[in-house]
Amino acid sequence: MARPKKIPGTTVSRLSVYVRALQKLRNEGVVTTSSEKLAEQIGLTAAQIRKDLAYFGQFGVPGRGYYVENLYNEIATILGINRRWEVALAGVGYLGYALLAYNGFKKQGFDVVIAFDKDPAKIGQTWEGVKIYDVAEAPSVLPESGAEIGIIAVPAAGAQEACDAFVSGGLKSILSFAPGRVITPPYVTVKRVDLAMELEWLSYYATNAGEHG
Amino acid sequence: MARPKKIPGTTVSRLSVYVRALQKLRNEGVVTTSSEKLAEQIGLTAAQIRKDLAYFGQFGVPGRGYYVENLYNEIATILGINRRWEVALAGVGYLGYALLAYNGFKKQGFDVVIAFDKDPAKIGQTWEGVKIYDVAEAPSVLPESGAEIGIIAVPAAGAQEACDAFVSGGLKSILSFAPGRVITPPYVTVKRVDLAMELEWLSYYATNAGEHG
Repeated sequence: MARPKKIPGTTVSRLSVYVRALQKLRNEGVVTTSSEKLAEQIGLTAAQIRKDLAYFGQFGVPGRGYYVENLYNEIATILGINRRWEVALAGVGYLGYALLAYNGFKKQGFDVVIAFDKDPAKIGQTWEGVKIYDVAEAPSVLPESGAEIGIIAVPAAGAQEACDAFVSGGLKSILSFAPGRVITPPYVTVKRVDLAMELEWLSYYATNAGEHG
Repeated sequence: MARPKKIPGTTVSRLSVYVRALQKLRNEGVVTTSSEKLAEQIGLTAAQIRKDLAYFGQFGVPGRGYYVENLYNEIATILGINRRWEVALAGVGYLGYALLAYNGFKKQGFDVVIAFDKDPAKIGQTWEGVKIYDVAEAPSVLPESGAEIGIIAVPAAGAQEACDAFVSGGLKSILSFAPGRVITPPYVTVKRVDLAMELEWLSYYATNAGEHG
């Protein structure tokens, strides 16, 4: 199926939400659903769901709604999660270790297979079955690791160095937990998660609660 | 200043980005900037920045652009980060501990002042200066803690219980790292961070790289 050039990032994020809702329905043995029922389950509007799905084609059956199994498979294929992804991790401090030990990644097919740090006390060790290398070794050891996605969990000061090492090692998809922007070649996709920003989002709504519906 | 009822969540998220960019400019001693310069610094379009700011009023000076210090203060006030927020944390496993030890929160004014867990080995201990209580004690100890924001970093199975305990303790703003939805009264704002979804966003772009600009 031909896909349009520009899908909004927010639509892509919602596909993940839809896939989880469909996964749940499938596990409960539900065969068909509708945009209205999905909307209620998720807490969105049916129109939003239909608009998001319309970017990728026609999935519903008029008068019957969606076949759960079919729609799940379609969205999983679109998201690229109908396969296993090998992941490299830079930084095994508190956050990095939490990510290394995080079951939620493995459950969705993301496997951390190699890790990097700058601390000589950690380099050479194997944590949770994952060997830790010096960041400087990334360009040489990454290609044979199978990793295609990199996670940066180092302090802000080391983020660009870790990012450069990942890019030199051939990674084109990077999830960064470091505050601040990292510079990459245009063919590299960087997704940033700034944990303090998530709290700021809440502080905004807490501050403006009286003024909102 | 009167504010419209519905500000898009994506606009609120971008305000955090603007505040950081302005913080940086201020530290560098820059006095004025423009939506074009900010856009280049951040990697957005000038039109997007102007549109986001227009929700909250008129901040630019025609022909001069924005005064950095002034715009910083305005956005910080809108976001509610011109003050300190006390934060409660549920779950001091790997992820919870990483959040407890995370400097990025304190730097932006978010202070974890109280923590909860269900593990008897952790209850009663003080980690990073923060005392750990039984989740069941939350309704009684939260009100005197000063916490207004709660962070849920427990496994999916315990998320609703932690959330209920927070709500009973008077919290109205909750950041949840647990996969899946938690049910709250309508006056409670919940922001979810699903770490696997962030990776799925990347797997989407990695999968569809050839089909995108």
